[in-house]
Amino acid sequence: MTQNTEQKRIPVGILGATGTVGQRFIQLLEGHPYFFIQAVGASPRSAGKPYSQAASKSWKQATPIPDKVGSLIVQSCEPTHFSNCRVIFSGLDSDVAGDIETAFLKADFAVFSNAKNHRMDPIVPLVVPLVNPSHMDIIKHQRSVHGLQQGFLVTNANCSTTGLVVALKALQDAFGPLSKVIVTTMQAISGAGYPGVPSLDILGNVVPYISGEEDKLETECSKILGSLNSDLTAFEAPPELKVSASCNRVAVIDGHMESVTVEFVKRPPPSIADITAALASYTSDAQKHKAPSAPQHSIVVMKEADRPQPRMDIMVGNGNAIAVGRIRECNIFDVKFSLLSHNTILGAAGSSIMNAEIAVSKGFIE
Amino acid sequence: MTQNTEQKRIPVGILGATGTVGQRFIQLLEGHPYFFIQAVGASPRSAGKPYSQAASKSWKQATPIPDKVGSLIVQSCEPTHFSNCRVIFSGLDSDVAGDIETAFLKADFAVFSNAKNHRMDPIVPLVVPLVNPSHMDIIKHQRSVHGLQQGFLVTNANCSTTGLVVALKALQDAFGPLSKVIVTTMQAISGAGYPGVPSLDILGNVVPYISGEEDKLETECSKILGSLNSDLTAFEAPPELKVSASCNRVAVIDGHMESVTVEFVKRPPPSIADITAALASYTSDAQKHKAPSAPQHSIVVMKEADRPQPRMDIMVGNGNAIAVGRIRECNIFDVKFSLLSHNTILGAAGSSIMNAEIAVSKGFIE
Amino acid sequence: MTQNTEQKRIPVGILGATGTVGQRFIQLLEGHPYFFIQAVGASPRSAGKPYSQAASKSWKQATPIPDKVGSLIVQSCEPTHFSNCRVIFSGLDSDVAGDIETAFLKADFAVFSNAKNHRMDPIVPLVVPLVNPSHMDIIKHQRSVHGLQQGFLVTNANCSTTGLVVALKALQDAFGPLSKVIVTTMQAISGAGYPGVPSLDILGNVVPYISGEEDKLETECSKILGSLNSDLTAFEAPPELKVSASCNRVAVIDGHMESVTVEFVKRPPPSIADITAALASYTSDAQKHKAPSAPQHSIVVMKEADRPQPRMDIMVGNGNAIAVGRIRECNIFDVKFSLLSHNTILGAAGSSIMNAEIAVSKGFIE
Amino acid sequence: MTQNTEQKRIPVGILGATGTVGQRFIQLLEGHPYFFIQAVGASPRSAGKPYSQAASKSWKQATPIPDKVGSLIVQSCEPTHFSNCRVIFSGLDSDVAGDIETAFLKADFAVFSNAKNHRMDPIVPLVVPLVNPSHMDIIKHQRSVHGLQQGFLVTNANCSTTGLVVALKALQDAFGPLSKVIVTTMQAISGAGYPGVPSLDILGNVVPYISGEEDKLETECSKILGSLNSDLTAFEAPPELKVSASCNRVAVIDGHMESVTVEFVKRPPPSIADITAALASYTSDAQKHKAPSAPQHSIVVMKEADRPQPRMDIMVGNGNAIAVGRIRECNIFDVKFSLLSHNTILGAAGSSIMNAEIAVSKGFIE
Repeated sequence: MTQNTEQKRIPVGILGATGTVGQRFIQLLEGHPYFFIQAVGASPRSAGKPYSQAASKSWKQATPIPDKVGSLIVQSCEPTHFSNCRVIFSGLDSDVAGDIETAFLKADFAVFSNAKNHRMDPIVPLVVPLVNPSHMDIIKHQRSVHGLQQGFLVTNANCSTTGLVVALKALQDAFGPLSKVIVTTMQAISGAGYPGVPSLDILGNVVPYISGEEDKLETECSKILGSLNSDLTAFEAPPELKVSASCNRVAVIDGHMESVTVEFVKRPPPSIADITAALASYTSDAQKHKAPSAPQHSIVVMKEADRPQPRMDIMVGNGNAIAVGRIRECNIFDVKFSLLSHNTILGAAGSSIMNAEIAVSKGFIE
Repeated sequence: MTQNTEQKRIPVGILGATGTVGQRFIQLLEGHPYFFIQAVGASPRSAGKPYSQAASKSWKQATPIPDKVGSLIVQSCEPTHFSNCRVIFSGLDSDVAGDIETAFLKADFAVFSNAKNHRMDPIVPLVVPLVNPSHMDIIKHQRSVHGLQQGFLVTNANCSTTGLVVALKALQDAFGPLSKVIVTTMQAISGAGYPGVPSLDILGNVVPYISGEEDKLETECSKILGSLNSDLTAFEAPPELKVSASCNRVAVIDGHMESVTVEFVKRPPPSIADITAALASYTSDAQKHKAPSAPQHSIVVMKEADRPQPRMDIMVGNGNAIAVGRIRECNIFDVKFSLLSHNTILGAAGSSIMNAEIAVSKGFIE
Repeated sequence: MTQNTEQKRIPVGILGATGTVGQRFIQLLEGHPYFFIQAVGASPRSAGKPYSQAASKSWKQATPIPDKVGSLIVQSCEPTHFSNCRVIFSGLDSDVAGDIETAFLKADFAVFSNAKNHRMDPIVPLVVPLVNPSHMDIIKHQRSVHGLQQGFLVTNANCSTTGLVVALKALQDAFGPLSKVIVTTMQAISGAGYPGVPSLDILGNVVPYISGEEDKLETECSKILGSLNSDLTAFEAPPELKVSASCNRVAVIDGHMESVTVEFVKRPPPSIADITAALASYTSDAQKHKAPSAPQHSIVVMKEADRPQPRMDIMVGNGNAIAVGRIRECNIFDVKFSLLSHNTILGAAGSSIMNAEIAVSKGFIE
Repeated sequence: MTQNTEQKRIPVGILGATGTVGQRFIQLLEGHPYFFIQAVGASPRSAGKPYSQAASKSWKQATPIPDKVGSLIVQSCEPTHFSNCRVIFSGLDSDVAGDIETAFLKADFAVFSNAKNHRMDPIVPLVVPLVNPSHMDIIKHQRSVHGLQQGFLVTNANCSTTGLVVALKALQDAFGPLSKVIVTTMQAISGAGYPGVPSLDILGNVVPYISGEEDKLETECSKILGSLNSDLTAFEAPPELKVSASCNRVAVIDGHMESVTVEFVKRPPPSIADITAALASYTSDAQKHKAPSAPQHSIVVMKEADRPQPRMDIMVGNGNAIAVGRIRECNIFDVKFSLLSHNTILGAAGSSIMNAEIAVSKGFIE
C-alpha cells in the first residue's frame, strides 16, 4: 500500500489496543478498504513502547502482529495523542471506558465503543450492524446535545446479546413482535479477555455464572429491537418483549452457543418451515449499505441435526454472521433453536468495524 | 469379608458389565452392605474371559477393578448363567436391553434397568430413588400380570432427567403443581459411554444435540412426578406440567449441568427465599427407608455466586445427591436456578442401587 | 474457473476421500493452480453416494465441503473408476492402503501415499518435500522395475517424523552428520483420524502411547535424511544417526509438539547462535522447485520464551512450515529445542501436494 | 475427635494457607493421626478474616473446607501468631517464602517448606520422603549452626523433580550410579497455583516453557540422589549424574507426566526385566519409618501398553506414590519409561507431611 492510498483511507486509533478486543481490531483492520491504523492507545504502563513490545506477552491471536502496527508507539488514551485520527475504535474495559470514551467524544472524534458504559445512555445508539443501523440516525441529535461538529459515539452490544438479536430481528421483521425469549448461553473463554478465566476454573468444567451478563442480555435486547422515534431523538422499546437469560462459561476458545426458545405475539404462531425460511432469507441493513465486512448471509441456517458447533461453524461470514440450527417446535413457547456467534468478531471488534463502515455509508464520517 | 458374611448378603449379577454403567455398578458395589457381585454378563464377544481381561481396555474408572470381580468369568446375558443371583443390575445399551431384561424378568429375577426400553411401560415403575420410590408399589400388580413369584422390573430414569426431577419434586411437594419447566442441559461425555463421543467432536467445542435426549427429559418427568392410583395399578401424570428441553454436550468428564426455569400453578408464586428453603430442606423417601446409599441431603444448596460446578461439586452426597445454586427470580417464569448431578452415579448405577436398597426395605426383595 | 482452465490443470483423484486426510486434500486443493479434483474414492459403503452425503457426518474441517466436490459421486477405490485422473492422492488407512495403492501404481497412475505400507520399500521414495525431494529421482528406476510408462509411487512420512526431519535436515546441511536424537512428542488428536481418540481417553489427560509411532519415527528419519546412490537405484542411510522417540497423545486438535535433543558428530559442536542461524536460514528444495505450496520460510524460528504453541503457531507457512523455539544448550547432548508442525497439513495432505508439485516441476508428471 | 485426643496430637500451623498448596495441606491433614491444624497464615490482605471467608473464592479442591479450619481466623505469617504450634507447614510462594521461613526457623519451629528458596542451602536437607529421609540427619548440625533447640528447616523438592527421583533412586539402589537422564515433562496446570495459567493459554494447547523448572529438575536431582557425609554436615552429589530436562505445560488438572530415558554407569546395563522388577519392588525409607501417609508401594508399575495416565492413575497410593509404565529399551541410552506423579500431593503437601511424619519417627519432633 502506498502512502497515497493511505491518504484516501480514513485514519483510525485503537484504544485498549493490547487487550483481547483491541487485538481483534488490529487483526481485522489489516488491509481494510476504508480504514488504516494511525495510532494505538493503552494503559500508561504500556505507553511509550512499540506496540510489538507492549503486546508481546498478551498477543493471543493465531496470526502475528502486523509489522506496521507492531512499530507504532503506544500512546496513553488521551485525545491529544490521537489528533491525526478521525475514528476511534475502543476496546477499553468498562472500568476505564466511561470517562475516556466521553473525553474522545467531546474532542469531536467518531467513537465506536465495545464497553457497556454508554450502551443504555438514551441518546447513544446501541447498534448491532446486522440489526439496527438505522439507530445511528440519532447521531444528529446527539451532536446537537453535545455541541459537536463531527464527533459522535456509537456502542455495540454485549457479545452474547449480539448473536441473539440477529435471529430475533429476523423473526420480528417477518412475524411481528415477540413476547417471550428464554435463552441459556454457553460462552467462550475469550469473552473474558486475557488473562481472564483461570484454567483451573474451566478445564473440564462449566461455570454457571458470568458477572453482569444476564442483566445485559435482558436489557440490551429491548433497546436494539426497539425503534427510533419519528423526530430521531429517542428510542422506544418493543412493549411486549421479555427476555430471561441464564449464562454459563464453557471450555471453548471462541464462539458463544445459545439455546433459545421464543414466543410470538401472533396467534397462531408461524410454522417451523416459515420460521426457518425467514431466518435463512434475512437480509441485514449492513448489506444494504454495502458495508465491506457485512456477510452475504447474516444468518446461516444449518440442516444437520448436530450443528452449529463452535469448532466448525464459528467462521461463517468470516465471523460476522451467525449460525442457527435445530429449529424445532417448543412444547411451551413456539420455537426452539441453537445459535452460534463469534464473540470477538461479530460480538466485539467486527461489529464496531461494520458500524463504522455503515457510518461512512450514511455520511456520518465524511 | 468372610464367606459367611457373603451368604447373608444378596447375590447380584451385573449385565453390560464391561460398559460405562456396568463399571460404575462394580465400583459402587465394592463393600456394599446388602449386595455382593456374584456374576457378570456382557456381549458374547467378552463371554468366557475373566472380567479383568474382558474389561482391560474399556475400564475407565479412577479406581482399579476390584480383584474379586476381576477374576469372575464373564457370562453371556442369559438367565441360566445367573441362577445364583437374586438381583440383576442392568447397564445394557438400549439396542439389546429390551429383550434381555424381559427375559430376566420372566425368569423371576428382580431386575433394575438403566435402559430406556421399559421406562414408559405402563406397569413398570420409573423410579428416581430421591423422588418416587412409592411407585414401586405397582410391583404387586406387575407380578400378577406377568405371573411372577418374586421377580419384577424397576427402571431408573435418563441421566439428565434424574437430576432435574429431584429439584422439581422438592418444589412440587412444597408449593403444589408446576406448570412449566424450560431446561437447557450441558451434559458430560461419560453419559455417552465408551468409546462414545469422539474427541474431535468435543474438545474445545459444544455439540447442541444428543439423540433422543430431549424427548426423554420431556416425557419421563411427567411419569416420575405423577402418582400411583389408589389400587396401585397405574400411574397418573400431573395434568398441568409441561417440560421443554434443549440438550447440549460439553467437554466435561462427569456431571450434567442444567439451567432451569420454572413456573408454578400457584399465584402468587412462592418467594425465592421460600423456594431456597424448600430445596435445602427436602428429605427424600430414600432416606426415610434408610437406604444405605441415600445422601443425608438430597439437595445441596450452594450460596456462592458461581456454583455448582462439575469439577468441584460433582461428588456431593458421594455422587448420589444434586447440587443447586443461583436460585433467583426469572422475569418470565417464577424462578431460575442451576443444577448439577452426577450422571453415572445418581444418573445411572447409583439410582439403581438405591432403588434396590429401597426394594429390600419395602420387602420386595426378601 | 472456466472449463477451459480446468482442462489445463491436471485431474486428480482422492482415495480415502471421506477420512481425515482425504478431507484435508479436498480443502487444500480448492483453487489449486496445478490440480483439480476429478474423482473421489472411498469404501464400498460410501460408493455411489454424492460426496456431500457420504461425508456429511464425518466432515470435521472448519470450512465447508466445496460445492464442486460435494456433488461428485464417490467411487470405490479401483483404478478403472479413476481413468480420467493422472494423479492419485491417497489418504487411505494402512489396513487397506497397501494393496489399493499398488493396484493404482500398476495401472500407471502417479500415486502419492500417506500410508505407512510402502514407506520402507527400497525403491519407493519416502519424501518430505521440505527435506529430500531429490529422492524422487529413483522414479526412473522404479518405473523400470515395474514396467511402467508414467506411473510411480511416492510416499510421505509419518506426521511426527515430518516435522522433526525438517529441523534435522537443516542442521545436517549446516554442520554435518548428526549422531543422536532423542525426541518426546506431544501429538494432536487429529492424527488419529475420526472417530479416532475417544474423548474419555484424552480430555484433561495425556496418553503416553501411540501404536507403532515410535518405531516409525526412529526408522523413517534415517531413510529421509539419507541419500540416493549415484546410479539412482537405492537409498543409503546416514551411518552415525540414532533416533530414540517417546510418543504421547495430548488434548490438542491440530499440531504435534516435540521436545528434541540433538548431538552432532562434529566436535566441538556448533554454537547455539550458529544453530539458530542455520535453522532460520534453511531453504528447502521445495522452494527451489517453486512448488506453489512451499512456504517462504521452511522453519520459523520463534524468539519468545514460551513458543511455539499449537494454538497460535500451527499455521506458520499456511501449515506447511515448522516452528522452532527455545533453542538452548543441552547439558548432555549439544542442543535442545521445541518444534511444532501441522500434522494434517505438512504432516499429511500438504506434503503429498507439495511432493506432487515438485514432481510436476521435475517432469515426472507431464 | 475429643479435645483430649487433640492434646496428644501435634499442633501445626499452615503458612500460605489460602494458596493451592496450603489448601492441599488442609485437605490432607483432615483426620491426620499425628497432627492437627492449630493456626493458618496468609497474606496481610487475608489476615483477620475467618479462613472460610478468606479462601471462599480461591478454594479449588473437590472436597469442601473442613468446618474446624473454616472457622480459624487467618493470621499474618509472623512467628508470634503461631506460638501454639510446634510444626509449620509452608505453602508460601517463593517471592515471600525465603524471609518468612527463615524467621520461623530462627523462632525455633520445625519448618517444612515447599518453596525453592532454601532447597540448595548446603545445610538444609532437600527431602523427597520416598527417596532420602536420611538427609534429615543433618538437622543436628543445622541446629548447631543456627543455635536452635528444637527448630529446623526441611524442604521438599520441586513437583516435577519429586516424581522423577523416586524412580531414579530405585534404579540407583538396584544397579549403581546413573550417568545420564533425559526427561521431557508434561505438567498439570495445578502446578502453577491459582489463578495460575490463563485458560486462553492452555485449552487445546501445549506451552513448551515453565519458568525456572528445567533448572530445578537438573540441579535438585543431584542433591537428592546424593549422600550425607560421614560426619553428617554436608551433602555429596553423585559425581557421574547429568540430567537434562525439557518442561511443557499441558491441559491436565493434576498429575505430571514425564517421558524419561536413563543411562547407567554399569556396563552391560541391567535388562528391562531386571529394571522392571527393581522398580516394582522398591521400598522407601518412609515405609520403613512407618510414616502413616507412606504408600504401600512407592512405585506402581503398570503393565498396560498405554498407562500411566493422569485421569486414571493419579491417585495411586492416595497420591503419594508414583506410577511407571512403558518400561522398554532405548536405542540410545539403556531404558525408557513413562512416569506419573501427583504434583500437589506427592509433589507438594503430601511430601511435606510425610517428611514431618518421618521427623517424628526419627525423634526430631518430640
